[in-house]
Amino acid sequence: MGSVTKSNILVVGFGGIGTITAYNLEASGLAAVTGVLRSNYDLVKERGFKIWSCDHGDVAGWRPTSISKNVPAVDSESKTPFDYVVVCTKNIPDVPPTVVDIIAPAITAGHTAIVLVQNGINIEKPVIAAFPKNIVISGISRMSSAELRPGEIFHQDHDVLIIGAFRNPNLLQETELKAAQHFNHLYNASGKATGQYSEDVQFMRWRKLVYNGSYNSLCAITGMDTSKLRLTGSAVTELLLPVMLEVKSIARAAGYQLAADQEDASLAGDAIDAYFRPSMQQDIEKGNFMEMEVIVGETVREAQRLGVPAPMLTFVYSLLKVLQFKTKAARGMISLPPMKDYGAGDMLSKT
Amino acid sequence: MGSVTKSNILVVGFGGIGTITAYNLEASGLAAVTGVLRSNYDLVKERGFKIWSCDHGDVAGWRPTSISKNVPAVDSESKTPFDYVVVCTKNIPDVPPTVVDIIAPAITAGHTAIVLVQNGINIEKPVIAAFPKNIVISGISRMSSAELRPGEIFHQDHDVLIIGAFRNPNLLQETELKAAQHFNHLYNASGKATGQYSEDVQFMRWRKLVYNGSYNSLCAITGMDTSKLRLTGSAVTELLLPVMLEVKSIARAAGYQLAADQEDASLAGDAIDAYFRPSMQQDIEKGNFMEMEVIVGETVREAQRLGVPAPMLTFVYSLLKVLQFKTKAARGMISLPPMKDYGAGDMLSKT
Repeated sequence: MGSVTKSNILVVGFGGIGTITAYNLEASGLAAVTGVLRSNYDLVKERGFKIWSCDHGDVAGWRPTSISKNVPAVDSESKTPFDYVVVCTKNIPDVPPTVVDIIAPAITAGHTAIVLVQNGINIEKPVIAAFPKNIVISGISRMSSAELRPGEIFHQDHDVLIIGAFRNPNLLQETELKAAQHFNHLYNASGKATGQYSEDVQFMRWRKLVYNGSYNSLCAITGMDTSKLRLTGSAVTELLLPVMLEVKSIARAAGYQLAADQEDASLAGDAIDAYFRPSMQQDIEKGNFMEMEVIVGETVREAQRLGVPAPMLTFVYSLLKVLQFKTKAARGMISLPPMKDYGAGDMLSKT
Repeated sequence: MGSVTKSNILVVGFGGIGTITAYNLEASGLAAVTGVLRSNYDLVKERGFKIWSCDHGDVAGWRPTSISKNVPAVDSESKTPFDYVVVCTKNIPDVPPTVVDIIAPAITAGHTAIVLVQNGINIEKPVIAAFPKNIVISGISRMSSAELRPGEIFHQDHDVLIIGAFRNPNLLQETELKAAQHFNHLYNASGKATGQYSEDVQFMRWRKLVYNGSYNSLCAITGMDTSKLRLTGSAVTELLLPVMLEVKSIARAAGYQLAADQEDASLAGDAIDAYFRPSMQQDIEKGNFMEMEVIVGETVREAQRLGVPAPMLTFVYSLLKVLQFKTKAARGMISLPPMKDYGAGDMLSKT
């Protein structure tokens, strides 16, 4: 049978989801992963990742085939092109660099398939615009996985990745579907994770938005996990359900008719004793930026485009904009006028 | 001219506003204040308050005429009745004890005038219901004053207290007005603070609600002071102004036509370089309960009663309810189901 040529894969973003995604791809035996690490590069180089995974068990000292501090520049003459570039970073178009900026050096035109394992809608648009000859694949991850400390990953429920091709009008759809199917094959080959191939990528993304537009946003705004939010009772009736139904209406106007009881499924998406903190809540609590533009901003803009009233979601969006501004201010990215001196310097200086 | 009999005044609540209010009343020379202290009783007994005040200067070691750990029980035979009971506590009807419960022992029926230096609307209703023979006076404080550390007060802008009688239908209005005028006289007698007598107490309260319903609520929800919130730009257009205009509409339906440009005045209520944190923001940041029922809850209920649409304010109210629940949960006042054990105890226990 001879040697198998492994797929040459670049994974960008080694947080909770990126690390498990990369681990699973290498566990297939069919992929050689180059990992782009940032803040945890030195640590991982020295001692590898420590992983506790419900799918892969306890793992110590793991590293992908190779690691890099930067996205490697691939010019066609000197380096093997990447077959896939898998993007597991947060998608924060309002805070540069954008996804396109980040991955550009590693993309070989007409060869590299770009896999966006990211939240939200319309995320493929700038990528297709920048790389018109490349296939773009959607990955919707349904696992809960978090980096508890640098290089230490806690992965607490089964890894399901919904995989399908975005439609790039410059390419033959058949080619796109085959690439997505092949990536799905790679993802299933470890026998540990579940790749779910789907041809209705947009439908799947809108479905996830029902949860992300409501729980993810409102947990970030209130600092409450999904269990506590549900246990208030009032948040279900007054906040979660109304936002979910607005997202459902926008989806319908956009051509995606979600299940009649989608809001019930989304409401009960997390176990009541899981006290799960969705991604935007985790981000804001860590002082990181939130994916609020691709999750909520784009949805509000779709509502406006389609003429669907979405007052609750719009209000949520306005609050998230304020919170994103707060993070920018805290990081010194916005200059604020100096505070007035009230002449009580001694007293205040001790606070 | 012989000796003057001082007014016998009980002040309940010695935070930023209560302490300055009590200090100013004693500074008149016309009042003997008994102060009810709680958490800071021992400290104040030992070394008094330390005050930095724009009106009263630097003050060290100050105590009111007498201090008490509890609201004194005044039965008509054994103790001099209080002429005024001035309530400067937070008004949190959703978390017992209520104002009525707290002050009841110190009220002499038909004698004691009850002064509510508190935010919100409809706060007089339970008080008049509980003490039908007593005068109830409204105090709207416009000073910024905060307890920076236990017993240390930082008072940063001139003390203006708008004083007027609530209408108790069991009493002659003339008697009520005289009592309010007398309290106003006491408040001005120090020459340092400004008592502003007003016969339109409800109008004044609705006017203050324009600021409190919007800034106070939204600063609490977002954790942003009034300056940062304004500096976002988007919060003015999308959050503050719409909420202010809803409050204005509800006020109008309730019979109080605020100034045409009230929202402009309220928007610019704090200097842009003051970075002022309104009371509910200060409360939630300290883990304390917020006056969200008397500020926002009652206003939403007035809107419902009067048939005025108030979607933004209602949304704000829903978020504040969730945040109040969070404080209750953090204080162990609500029992939550135990968290699921994911079997990664060793890894999680170190977080």
